[in-house]
Amino acid sequence: AAEGGAAAQAPARSSAGGRTYDSLLVSTQDDITTIVLNRPAKKNAITTQMYEEIIEALQHAARDHSVVTVFTGAGDFYCSGNDLSNFTKIPEGGAEQMAKAGGELLRRYVKAFIDFPKPLVAVVNGPAVGISVTVMGMFDLVYATESATFHTPFSQLGQSPEGCSSYTFPRIMGLGKANEMLLFNKKLTAFQACQLGLVTEVFPDSSFHAEVWSRLKNYAKLPPNSLALSKQLIRSVEKERLHAVNDAEVDRLIERWMSDECFNAVMSFFQAKAKL
Amino acid sequence: AAEGGAAAQAPARSSAGGRTYDSLLVSTQDDITTIVLNRPAKKNAITTQMYEEIIEALQHAARDHSVVTVFTGAGDFYCSGNDLSNFTKIPEGGAEQMAKAGGELLRRYVKAFIDFPKPLVAVVNGPAVGISVTVMGMFDLVYATESATFHTPFSQLGQSPEGCSSYTFPRIMGLGKANEMLLFNKKLTAFQACQLGLVTEVFPDSSFHAEVWSRLKNYAKLPPNSLALSKQLIRSVEKERLHAVNDAEVDRLIERWMSDECFNAVMSFFQAKAKL
Amino acid sequence: AAEGGAAAQAPARSSAGGRTYDSLLVSTQDDITTIVLNRPAKKNAITTQMYEEIIEALQHAARDHSVVTVFTGAGDFYCSGNDLSNFTKIPEGGAEQMAKAGGELLRRYVKAFIDFPKPLVAVVNGPAVGISVTVMGMFDLVYATESATFHTPFSQLGQSPEGCSSYTFPRIMGLGKANEMLLFNKKLTAFQACQLGLVTEVFPDSSFHAEVWSRLKNYAKLPPNSLALSKQLIRSVEKERLHAVNDAEVDRLIERWMSDECFNAVMSFFQAKAKL
Repeated sequence: AAEGGAAAQAPARSSAGGRTYDSLLVSTQDDITTIVLNRPAKKNAITTQMYEEIIEALQHAARDHSVVTVFTGAGDFYCSGNDLSNFTKIPEGGAEQMAKAGGELLRRYVKAFIDFPKPLVAVVNGPAVGISVTVMGMFDLVYATESATFHTPFSQLGQSPEGCSSYTFPRIMGLGKANEMLLFNKKLTAFQACQLGLVTEVFPDSSFHAEVWSRLKNYAKLPPNSLALSKQLIRSVEKERLHAVNDAEVDRLIERWMSDECFNAVMSFFQAKAKL
Repeated sequence: AAEGGAAAQAPARSSAGGRTYDSLLVSTQDDITTIVLNRPAKKNAITTQMYEEIIEALQHAARDHSVVTVFTGAGDFYCSGNDLSNFTKIPEGGAEQMAKAGGELLRRYVKAFIDFPKPLVAVVNGPAVGISVTVMGMFDLVYATESATFHTPFSQLGQSPEGCSSYTFPRIMGLGKANEMLLFNKKLTAFQACQLGLVTEVFPDSSFHAEVWSRLKNYAKLPPNSLALSKQLIRSVEKERLHAVNDAEVDRLIERWMSDECFNAVMSFFQAKAKL
Repeated sequence: AAEGGAAAQAPARSSAGGRTYDSLLVSTQDDITTIVLNRPAKKNAITTQMYEEIIEALQHAARDHSVVTVFTGAGDFYCSGNDLSNFTKIPEGGAEQMAKAGGELLRRYVKAFIDFPKPLVAVVNGPAVGISVTVMGMFDLVYATESATFHTPFSQLGQSPEGCSSYTFPRIMGLGKANEMLLFNKKLTAFQACQLGLVTEVFPDSSFHAEVWSRLKNYAKLPPNSLALSKQLIRSVEKERLHAVNDAEVDRLIERWMSDECFNAVMSFFQAKAKL
């Protein structure tokens, strides 16, 4: 109920600039547009529809009058990553068509982060998994609550890194530390992620929202053009490279999704989960 | 009065290779050329004339027989950055001409650091602000005294990053930590800057000069060609990129300097200062 | 005699896939191919013949059925680097021919690491020097025992960095910290190297082998294609650049090897050693 308590900021069906979303809460206040993943019962796992809604919400935020854009999760989780049930609805065209469609969606999703023109802040309110972690390398600030965790179990699921993490993670933390996450499924605590530079600052759980939002409100009072143009300047150095990396990652992931190795790994995951 | 006490090393009007400078002390001893910003009454703020003299001093040092070049400040400050009074002398051509001339000067200044062919060491004897901080990403070593601070308040002044910091800072410290400095005006202590890799090593204030200069004298005894060629090899990987970044930063800054947002922010700064 | 005790894993003349090596122990077990530098009496210094054998062993490991490849040293040293006696056997063509042949060998050696297609792990069992350190920036994981050290005394020997370290080290640890190693001969402890990101994790000497090998065996059970393709994806972003850096480093080093400065520095090294 404190200010910035995400779920408290907007009604169940959110409206920003007239647009309503099924899976997100989007609102603008104090020159900050906040995008809240609002599927807490499923740990904010991202469905196909949510990917589309997030892309749209980012495109709206890019054009609205806010100075800073915030990305966070409703409830105790930040985001549990790609909803694996996305893999279980095989369309008419079969696995190949599903893989290609999924790849295109992923490409556009990551593109929305690469091209985002204003300061973008992740307010990591709890555990973060998969694609919600990998795109963090493109956030301008990542503030995490003490109990947040960071996990990218790609090889466990027979997959490969996305979200430009194959480029940004080795840059941020060095190749070895990046590989522990991206190849060998190591889960980081918030403090570990901060020490490695993936997280900008860690806050105690008890004061997380109050401290972070007080700071963000001050940031949003700074000269807006200076902020946006400085962010774009910093991004411009890497932009072409990030798009190329996104393309390469998506192409590889499409191949992976069509492989037996990946299929078997995902099936094992579901079976292990069903036994619990 | 200890060795390396910068102000003690040379007379008020310094001479190196016959060249004299108004705003610098430049001397060569023990195979080390030392460039001292010598405007302590103004916290070594860099005027238009000083930019020109520093460029010239670097060009001389590049060609002299010294092995290592040191950059430091006279008095308690390292450097308070760009002298904002540079903005108050509007020339005949008006703000646009001033912005363009300032941009060209800045471009040549940063270029002198990109192209410098020998090991270049910052001996950070006190607070460092603005452009004196941003170019540090191109110094081969940065030794700081414990009480030094590092501050780049660009957005506060409606401006944008320069000195290739939009490229080097995210490389050195990760995007989030770089943005806290470059976008959100965070001031770092020497220990924080060292932890993030911007500073190579921190020394106690009491032994700073003695420890640093003893070490530098040893470094200057190493095979000179091996040092210079190794430095050039390391720089060559980034050189083209650094020039492109410098150009992009200067172009953006020229636009900024002509904007109302920047004008108003600088005026507010002067008014706030006048009230003190 | 514990599992993973390198020297215990294979007979004095090692055989992997029918191939025998004079200077290496190579074996495959639990889906891990292990390449052991086996010249402990000379601290595993790399002779011309050993370079060739390592290149061949890497090419075999790239094609065998193992999932992970490990590089380590027999005895108390990891590797003391390039065997300087390589410099003392001047061939018929004189110093120039020796320099060029040495350069070509070095180029191919480093190339084998750039192009290696599977997860490659350094198990650093003791002091590491020179080229055994510089190529670490291309290893996917670097596990070090507590008493390991990391030393690249190039300028002391009048030489310049290789193994792509002129690119990878500034990326991993920032320019200043990289220069302390590459230009100014600073030797790092395992903990320092880990803090800077060159080492992925440090283990107590007493449990090093047990902990590392238990972990590696678990890693080798992960989906092999996912691991290899993810590693290749991460490498692909830098591959072209790494080859260009390798070429530039080798060209510079060939010049260095033919210089009086380097000749004199190496002679001084041998004389100092002879006096001990």
